[in-house]
Amino acid sequence: MTDTGPALIALDWGTSGQRAWLLGKGGEILDARSAERGLLSTTEDVDLRDPRARAAAYEAAFRKTCGDWLAAFPAVPAIASGMVGSAQGWTDSGYRTVPASLDFTSLVPVPHRDGVLHLVPGLRVPSGESPGDVLRGEETQLVGVLEALGDPREPVTVVLPGTHSKWVRVEDGFVTDFATAMTGELYGLLTAHGILSRTAADPVRDEAAFLRGLAAGKRSRGLATEAFGARPLVLDGVLAPASLPDYLSGVLIADEVSHLLRDSDTRVVLCGAGELCRRYALALADRGVEATVLSEEITTRGLWRLATAAGLLEDRLERTLKP
Amino acid sequence: MTDTGPALIALDWGTSGQRAWLLGKGGEILDARSAERGLLSTTEDVDLRDPRARAAAYEAAFRKTCGDWLAAFPAVPAIASGMVGSAQGWTDSGYRTVPASLDFTSLVPVPHRDGVLHLVPGLRVPSGESPGDVLRGEETQLVGVLEALGDPREPVTVVLPGTHSKWVRVEDGFVTDFATAMTGELYGLLTAHGILSRTAADPVRDEAAFLRGLAAGKRSRGLATEAFGARPLVLDGVLAPASLPDYLSGVLIADEVSHLLRDSDTRVVLCGAGELCRRYALALADRGVEATVLSEEITTRGLWRLATAAGLLEDRLERTLKP
Repeated sequence: MTDTGPALIALDWGTSGQRAWLLGKGGEILDARSAERGLLSTTEDVDLRDPRARAAAYEAAFRKTCGDWLAAFPAVPAIASGMVGSAQGWTDSGYRTVPASLDFTSLVPVPHRDGVLHLVPGLRVPSGESPGDVLRGEETQLVGVLEALGDPREPVTVVLPGTHSKWVRVEDGFVTDFATAMTGELYGLLTAHGILSRTAADPVRDEAAFLRGLAAGKRSRGLATEAFGARPLVLDGVLAPASLPDYLSGVLIADEVSHLLRDSDTRVVLCGAGELCRRYALALADRGVEATVLSEEITTRGLWRLATAAGLLEDRLERTLKP
Repeated sequence: MTDTGPALIALDWGTSGQRAWLLGKGGEILDARSAERGLLSTTEDVDLRDPRARAAAYEAAFRKTCGDWLAAFPAVPAIASGMVGSAQGWTDSGYRTVPASLDFTSLVPVPHRDGVLHLVPGLRVPSGESPGDVLRGEETQLVGVLEALGDPREPVTVVLPGTHSKWVRVEDGFVTDFATAMTGELYGLLTAHGILSRTAADPVRDEAAFLRGLAAGKRSRGLATEAFGARPLVLDGVLAPASLPDYLSGVLIADEVSHLLRDSDTRVVLCGAGELCRRYALALADRGVEATVLSEEITTRGLWRLATAAGLLEDRLERTLKP
């Protein structure tokens, strides 16, 4: 094996899909693939209470996506983050309790036929006096974000919008607290099922409807009332049925920002899909906060850094040096 | 026809079902039936843009449920409220704009083969400076509630919890304002689809979980965050998966009450399903408001009073007096 060969197999393995990368010795992407082999489809026909059957299903899904890489580069270490490390995953990689450093010095090794896959643990705020929370997969994005920001020592609030948006407070490399809003999931449920989905017709992009929704979501009548509010607007002819989803997007994002933004959030960084970040940036600007937006492709950077911190790349070096 | 015969055919005809009653001359229930012939199933195979096809479908559904009554008592008037009077209904009965008296002096007549069905209009708050809203069907419950309360002249806040909970402010027989929270629909979506439905297993009644949810919903982190909060509680072993629905019920109801209860609500009356009213009463008590609870069977009372106010029963008297 030469110095220019692959150095790491890295996976973002979530609820609905898998993304896998073959990374070079500088962390650069040599090859990439994605498959719909997430937790749901992988465990579809498996009794989740049977750890062996579960492990066999995950190993088969892993080999389907990465089998040729494992065969061609047997000494290359592998790392995965996301729901693959949950209680319903291949192996439960657990949670680190906040305040927690993101420089994990150890990962959870899962032996398989062709080697070992190292799973990244999630983070948790324990339930107690104050409300608990959990995240898994986002810790890897966070690591990538902090590196991209040059590992700031001052407090940063990292917002990762999505199905379950995360608002993470970080200080000097430590996650001090975080909260989740299931905004994206509510958007999906409301636009796919229920009365608003029957009102909406062939959605179109409508920035004015989104901004109108943002203004409604800032009011104090609550999400359950402002979301319903789309219906009278359509009945009154003020909102086109095709614009209802964008209106709802505005209502939900404004509601989330209203509740989770704190006065102490001096620096806010958004990382996620471009259009979603643009919408959150508008909602934050509406609150007088100028956010920095980072591109979504921060995950490989996070996986690379986690692998490095846990010594996976040194191991490999040592192994390749031995005869 | 004798004085002891039926005086009114009354229907509560909503989105998912029909309830029909044959009422005696004092408004008492002589016969009752219900069928799953709501707006959805009635218009399932109908092009909604074709008013004739739509009317034919509604007439067929009406006759299936009430045909024998129509044949046996041809002179008896008929009234219906609910989504049957919506834009996707038999005929659009429109909306009265608030502030509106509930003593409607006219209804919307829909002729059919065997006579005329009188449709009750809904109520609307127009969209403008302040947010708009609509209700349809609940105006009939309101009429029944106000009669049951002895037509109070002082301000009353009537809360009708359900799929789309209504908070209606009434003063001296006039509806001055109202707001809708789609709390029941959100509960249904979250427990039937999405991540929380996968966490919940064979729901059981759990009052402690409900009360814990109430406390969480009172916090200021927002519905999208507190609903997700059920998940870490389950992962931490604090909440049993089977208790998740009751926890969520508490979160959603407390969130609704927090947002829609006003300092000016001096008298609050709850009307709806018994268990749901009990839960709302607890959430209100938590805010220092003691609510009066009325039983759900207020609808026939409302329909009877609406028919009386619109002169339907006099018409019949006149007709029966003519040779």
